[in-house]
Amino acid sequence: MRPFVHVNCAMSADGKIAGVERKQVRISSEEDKTRVRELRRKYDAILVGVGTVLADDPHLIIKGEDYDTNPIRIVLDPHGKTPDDALVLDESAPTVMVTTEDCEKEWDCEETIVMGRQIDLPTLMEKLAEDIGIESILVEGGGNTIAEFFKNKLVDRYTVFVGGLLIGGRSAPTPADGDGWVCEGGQKMNLDSVETLGNGALLTFTPVY
Amino acid sequence: MRPFVHVNCAMSADGKIAGVERKQVRISSEEDKTRVRELRRKYDAILVGVGTVLADDPHLIIKGEDYDTNPIRIVLDPHGKTPDDALVLDESAPTVMVTTEDCEKEWDCEETIVMGRQIDLPTLMEKLAEDIGIESILVEGGGNTIAEFFKNKLVDRYTVFVGGLLIGGRSAPTPADGDGWVCEGGQKMNLDSVETLGNGALLTFTPVY
Repeated sequence: MRPFVHVNCAMSADGKIAGVERKQVRISSEEDKTRVRELRRKYDAILVGVGTVLADDPHLIIKGEDYDTNPIRIVLDPHGKTPDDALVLDESAPTVMVTTEDCEKEWDCEETIVMGRQIDLPTLMEKLAEDIGIESILVEGGGNTIAEFFKNKLVDRYTVFVGGLLIGGRSAPTPADGDGWVCEGGQKMNLDSVETLGNGALLTFTPVY
Repeated sequence: MRPFVHVNCAMSADGKIAGVERKQVRISSEEDKTRVRELRRKYDAILVGVGTVLADDPHLIIKGEDYDTNPIRIVLDPHGKTPDDALVLDESAPTVMVTTEDCEKEWDCEETIVMGRQIDLPTLMEKLAEDIGIESILVEGGGNTIAEFFKNKLVDRYTVFVGGLLIGGRSAPTPADGDGWVCEGGQKMNLDSVETLGNGALLTFTPVY
């Protein structure tokens, strides 16, 4: 048993989620932001990698909700780099930090899961479902984390908003980074729907395993 | 006076035009291929950078057309790396090679334009319009060439097909590469239309200068 995994992101019309040096930029339209707000309500947990925490310091909460009503926040941080004052560690929602036995850092949070030498995603998914009762996860980035979920064939739904902006830069981060192909020839996905949301389009895909 | 410039490309659902090491992959649907075939008929010329010639050896012709009816093929090749047996140099269509004074190579083609020390795109566009009478150009890649056109604010229309495939890899080429941002904060574009074409979506944008 594992949670339903939905990967959601926004990219520019040339496939970037930020500029070079991860400099943040507004890609989503207001309509897309509203959609993401509603989307978060539907999931038990929101998950990001530590790279996103360090680059963007996201809050990962729903405005107006509190500790008991917000989704659980999950951070994949194998080497313990999330600083104590990261917004994702504040009192607005429960936070589960996921790290490895190499990590010496401890956090003041709801729970810390120590994996083995590395974070094995299939094992983690089972743990989250069985130990914490998480049935659905919204993965919001970054590119390396999303690529790992695809490599492990754990993605049940992929939504990407393509915005009216062209960023440029061969080293700018993209929705799925990592060292190489997520699988031989790429992961085939079926296009379920296309929707215009302000000055961009939302595409919904289902991976075909 | 300069030609109307339309940039067209196909990217995966994670913003790649190929895999790492530029390994080619099929992203376009049959419906999109048909669209591109019709699109080429509407333009006086099709332009690519030498990187695309070396990676993909494209033909850049319309099936069934000949030397007199195909669009002119233009290759930006500052250092003369296009081999004599490249498909883009065959007898199916006229070819204009664009190079710099550093280039020692000569090609058997319709015309070779030698710029100065580098290929200045605004100057080239004027030359193509005034000397050869080219009124419209379809730019088909690769990422560095497309980024240069945007940096010089020469793009009048941008169409991108987003296909149902997830490739992965931080070093995989994207629709607009180059060293950094095409301009401060990115190039804003208006979304003109969104169309489902088989297992992917075609987005049409107009840059706002």
